[in-house]
Amino acid sequence: MPSISLLLLLDLTGTFVFALSGGLLAVRKDLDIVGIVVLSVVTGLGGGVIRDVLLGRTPPAALERESYLVAAIAAAAVVYFFSNRIERMGTPLQRFDALGLGLFAVSGTLTSLNAGLGFVPAVLLGVVTGAGGGVVRDLLVADIPLVFRRDVYALAALLGATTFAAGARIGVPEFAAAVLGVAATVVLRLMSTRHDWHAPRPRPSRSS
Amino acid sequence: MPSISLLLLLDLTGTFVFALSGGLLAVRKDLDIVGIVVLSVVTGLGGGVIRDVLLGRTPPAALERESYLVAAIAAAAVVYFFSNRIERMGTPLQRFDALGLGLFAVSGTLTSLNAGLGFVPAVLLGVVTGAGGGVVRDLLVADIPLVFRRDVYALAALLGATTFAAGARIGVPEFAAAVLGVAATVVLRLMSTRHDWHAPRPRPSRSS
Amino acid sequence: MPSISLLLLLDLTGTFVFALSGGLLAVRKDLDIVGIVVLSVVTGLGGGVIRDVLLGRTPPAALERESYLVAAIAAAAVVYFFSNRIERMGTPLQRFDALGLGLFAVSGTLTSLNAGLGFVPAVLLGVVTGAGGGVVRDLLVADIPLVFRRDVYALAALLGATTFAAGARIGVPEFAAAVLGVAATVVLRLMSTRHDWHAPRPRPSRSS
Repeated sequence: MPSISLLLLLDLTGTFVFALSGGLLAVRKDLDIVGIVVLSVVTGLGGGVIRDVLLGRTPPAALERESYLVAAIAAAAVVYFFSNRIERMGTPLQRFDALGLGLFAVSGTLTSLNAGLGFVPAVLLGVVTGAGGGVVRDLLVADIPLVFRRDVYALAALLGATTFAAGARIGVPEFAAAVLGVAATVVLRLMSTRHDWHAPRPRPSRSS
Repeated sequence: MPSISLLLLLDLTGTFVFALSGGLLAVRKDLDIVGIVVLSVVTGLGGGVIRDVLLGRTPPAALERESYLVAAIAAAAVVYFFSNRIERMGTPLQRFDALGLGLFAVSGTLTSLNAGLGFVPAVLLGVVTGAGGGVVRDLLVADIPLVFRRDVYALAALLGATTFAAGARIGVPEFAAAVLGVAATVVLRLMSTRHDWHAPRPRPSRSS
Repeated sequence: MPSISLLLLLDLTGTFVFALSGGLLAVRKDLDIVGIVVLSVVTGLGGGVIRDVLLGRTPPAALERESYLVAAIAAAAVVYFFSNRIERMGTPLQRFDALGLGLFAVSGTLTSLNAGLGFVPAVLLGVVTGAGGGVVRDLLVADIPLVFRRDVYALAALLGATTFAAGARIGVPEFAAAVLGVAATVVLRLMSTRHDWHAPRPRPSRSS
């Protein structure tokens, strides 16, 4: 089944880049190496675990197969040794987060479609899978999750999941649809950060 | 099975009013339309998803059936266009939250009884279901959850769940027991807010 | 099956001491009796519920069997009546937390091995089970979880889970391996607190 290897590719790449974002956040929060590993692993594995629990696929692949854990710990090691060099890259946390968001949004949608869910529920589960790891990461260090601070975050996951699901439905080869979906998420997410796009607010907003 | 349609009624009404509370909180936190939709959907669907995962009913109804999502998005739209008018109603967030708490406490108890759980576990799952959506809502915007700030919150869910379960056991028609349970939660919750009721504290409490 | 009664012993003791830690934190946060009961129950039952959901054993034992709830509520009662006396014991919250961490780390590993998982996934699930209740407890009162503030927290759970799994594999009687695992966690955790051990940080750490 080709979609299984596509799924594994999406999952492991997503785990690695999300784990990078978790590790970088841990460094910024001045945590030690244990904190870096924990936040990398939780961020890298979180979205997939949530997806599998919601679909009743237990134990979740990310806990059962060592490869996920290895990918997340490798990312933590990269962060531990090269965080200074990575931080000089510009906005690495945002970039890795955007890529992980896209990869997991597509992976969650694909898994849900494979499990027989309809279009809308599959897209919804894709968004939850994509945003899940990042939300847990931010909650654990007591930040307001990016999904609320960055206006277009959830929209970007929604766009990627919808692009993939629509592509798959109209007969685009699965791999190409996945690439399109991930690209759609990443482009929307990074453009919105660069140009400071905002979604509209209700009329006169009251300060809380 | 009449209890299925009662369940759907409880769930969809609960989803709608909890989603209203999530949307109103998003407006108070000055979030944009995406934040309003996300917080509405998470609050509206959260309790039911937690309940179904705990009972092993996956994928959760709230993700599989579009009607839940539609109810939550409808609530977000209502908040987006009418939040000013709604806020003039008095304490709308508390009221919608109290109603959602009661509806989901009863819905969680009913589902658990249907799944063959005993009285105490069913009531416990009712409380978790009722409080779940609100706890997730408050956590995501980094508030201390209402369940801790408002003393009688968990008690109100417990009273509603117990009223329903006891009523169902002694032969009260299911629909009537549900109405009684919801009413018990709402009345206790709103009375405690109005009269500033508190549960007792341990002796000389130490400031943390 | 002897491992079932060992499991129940680990679970109920872990529930009781974790619930004590939750109750003590509630008192420090100046919560009333309802808050004490809620935080005790959530902390005591949290880790086991997460474990069972991840392993697909639903409804979780902690919700289905009244004994867990009874143990947690008993702990809440102890805290309510004797919190002053307990606080005079030194650092009770840390001690109960360390013991609960060890008990649940071993219980999670044992359950996972019984469910047929391999060594590494079983240890990983042990760490998640051990840390789970405490993380939920800290999140709910909007603290940064101990797992990040105390450097060696996750390491201590890892040591206990690995000790137990390795002991069981090389043929140490299950009960003895469990005692060794719990002891390893507790000793490492309390020694690290007393001597202020830290894991290494990456090179020049930047303040966030």
